[in-house]
Amino acid sequence: MNVIDVILAKRDGRELTDPQIDWVIRAYTAGVVADEQMSALAMAILLNGMNRREINRWTDAMIGTGIRMDFSALDRPTADKHSTGGVGDKITLPLAPLVAACGAAVPQLSGRGLGHTGGTLDKLESIPGWRATLSTEEMLAVLREVGAVICAAGDGLAPADKKLYALRDVTGTVESIPLIASSIMSKKIAEGTRALVLDVKVGSGAFMKTREQARLLAETMVALGTDHGVNTVALLTDMEVPLGLTAGNALEVRESLEVLAGGGPADVVELTLALAREMLAAAGIDGVDPAEKLADGSAMDVWKRMIRAQGGDPEAGLAVAKEQHVLLAPASGTLTRLDALAVGVAAWRLGAGRARKEDPVQAGAGIELHAKPGDAVTAGTPLLTLHTDTPDRFEAALDDLTCSYTIADDAETGYSPRPLILERVSA
Amino acid sequence: MNVIDVILAKRDGRELTDPQIDWVIRAYTAGVVADEQMSALAMAILLNGMNRREINRWTDAMIGTGIRMDFSALDRPTADKHSTGGVGDKITLPLAPLVAACGAAVPQLSGRGLGHTGGTLDKLESIPGWRATLSTEEMLAVLREVGAVICAAGDGLAPADKKLYALRDVTGTVESIPLIASSIMSKKIAEGTRALVLDVKVGSGAFMKTREQARLLAETMVALGTDHGVNTVALLTDMEVPLGLTAGNALEVRESLEVLAGGGPADVVELTLALAREMLAAAGIDGVDPAEKLADGSAMDVWKRMIRAQGGDPEAGLAVAKEQHVLLAPASGTLTRLDALAVGVAAWRLGAGRARKEDPVQAGAGIELHAKPGDAVTAGTPLLTLHTDTPDRFEAALDDLTCSYTIADDAETGYSPRPLILERVSA
Repeated sequence: MNVIDVILAKRDGRELTDPQIDWVIRAYTAGVVADEQMSALAMAILLNGMNRREINRWTDAMIGTGIRMDFSALDRPTADKHSTGGVGDKITLPLAPLVAACGAAVPQLSGRGLGHTGGTLDKLESIPGWRATLSTEEMLAVLREVGAVICAAGDGLAPADKKLYALRDVTGTVESIPLIASSIMSKKIAEGTRALVLDVKVGSGAFMKTREQARLLAETMVALGTDHGVNTVALLTDMEVPLGLTAGNALEVRESLEVLAGGGPADVVELTLALAREMLAAAGIDGVDPAEKLADGSAMDVWKRMIRAQGGDPEAGLAVAKEQHVLLAPASGTLTRLDALAVGVAAWRLGAGRARKEDPVQAGAGIELHAKPGDAVTAGTPLLTLHTDTPDRFEAALDDLTCSYTIADDAETGYSPRPLILERVSA
Repeated sequence: MNVIDVILAKRDGRELTDPQIDWVIRAYTAGVVADEQMSALAMAILLNGMNRREINRWTDAMIGTGIRMDFSALDRPTADKHSTGGVGDKITLPLAPLVAACGAAVPQLSGRGLGHTGGTLDKLESIPGWRATLSTEEMLAVLREVGAVICAAGDGLAPADKKLYALRDVTGTVESIPLIASSIMSKKIAEGTRALVLDVKVGSGAFMKTREQARLLAETMVALGTDHGVNTVALLTDMEVPLGLTAGNALEVRESLEVLAGGGPADVVELTLALAREMLAAAGIDGVDPAEKLADGSAMDVWKRMIRAQGGDPEAGLAVAKEQHVLLAPASGTLTRLDALAVGVAAWRLGAGRARKEDPVQAGAGIELHAKPGDAVTAGTPLLTLHTDTPDRFEAALDDLTCSYTIADDAETGYSPRPLILERVSA
């Protein structure tokens, strides 16, 4: 097998054969195919595409470079969720314990944030003592005892994907639906869940800017899951506006606790319940209403046990940033727009996210929203509060926010709310 | 400037700006842009193209990474020739001294062979004592004294191209007309010639398999030369059949000497004279008939002086391979086809070419043709003679040649000769 032949095939618009795909993934992982060869192939895939057979095989080949986990010894069905990433997307935090409280096992292998979208592990690490890294045995023990675990994916799952993702990140080859879908799904399939719900974000704060792109990605991932025996559905959800009223690590944990206590912002509750219902249905669990499990405190109980099982203190105070800056509404009227991307970038700049993967994050940094689109605002009252330990960053963050919102006179507004859940994609 | 932005621009079908092109070539040459980033960009260029402005700027940027030579102090006009490479293409050997004998200065910076097409320097190195590597001063001295010099291009001309070509070679990104054209022309423009004739080969033994591709490459290179003040024309010439009756290093030197002595195969003479006339016209030299300079021995005189000036002995015997194998015609009739690619690959396998650039070549290895398409052949008489120092390679070479020719009954042949010179492209 010769890597040039594989590159030329895709470059010239032909299908890759199964042996070509198996070999190139294995050889790349082993260092036989060089980075500059794989990046040329990735660009050819981005521009010329892959069909369903090729994507399936590519995913299989990546899975085959690592271990597969097996939850079949658990006494209850597993259900997992994956979000393509958004601003203020803390849904995993209330969702995992909620779905566990409803009777499923939730093995939530998560990542860290890079760029303007936050990372679930970064958020949970703002809880004193909490550990993201568990051995496979520890992870299974927490899952068995508590019903839910949120931890870092080990290096053993699809190591080819880890290497390939790092390469795509520096070579302009991230935005390929076949490569995104196989990257996400290789880890989820290797993880061994039987049911999977995908939250595919659409809008300025999301990776997919249009509904069409998001639908194609959702369909590709649902097909991949289905072809691998994973009961998979996807929701397309809005990411023009941040989710909830916070973006930042400790800020989002605090908001998640409100949801687990039966309160919290309406959009966060709505999406948490919608995803919970999909996960339960996909796992084959009927007759449990997740709204009741929020109301009666059983989701909060699972949360506390889950945090304790990973060394965290669920009663400990959460970090607060050293400095705050309040941005006041410059006019009265209706807030008709608040751009998710601008809020995400500003929160990242304040210290909530990282520019390079080795950077630390600030637990307390981020942005609080005092109004959401559709709300009335009054000139001179708080619109946003910016939090950071490094106040020299306020200026740059405020620059990001300059054109991030629109306040319209009540008379002329014409504001109509966008639905949060746009579309459902199933096999 | 950020390399990802440059890659994304071309990936998404936009034009690269002048500052983007200048920066990316400089940063790649300096090692700031990594190989895996440049190969992704090269693939995006291959698939999405570059326009005339972009190709011009890309070429300028590559020239700008190195030195420029200057022949303006010479007492006569310069003319250079470049061939895109073919099987049996020894034309540079008789052409350079012939054009010098007609009054031009011919600074012929040449390369070595890689794969099935031979390299001019490899051919000349079969002459005992001859040196390919000259300092710039030595080169100018030979050019001034003799009127022609054939030597290795120094590392100083367009070093970005050298690095980029090596990368393209291993990443499936060779076959891009903008990248091929800028690679060839950056060195020719940096070399400082005022007149340039391009021999763009078309057919099985050439890089460009179709007339349309070859025409596009020729037009692109002629435009580049013209835009840089080099008087440039191109001939599209046939490469379905090997040129002349030999492919191999010493074998081709011997055939070139026949041409310089006023004899030689008709096609080699025809192409040598056609290119000589184009070079003289481009250099502004009128009223000299190159055919006379072959007939009266003055081209041969320049050859001998040129070889001696570079340490070679023009009277020394040339290498002969240790072993020969004669392939007999299996039938009588008219030879209607003899495939250039198959002959080139077989000669390469016998030792005339190299698989990797650090491999040595055999001076005596190669193939002699005893007939060309259109000739009558008789069953049991020699069709081809294979030459090598390593007779264990005969079998593989004979395999390459199995389906390389067609002998038709005279009655049914319908053979009509292809013209050698297909088309002329000028500004």
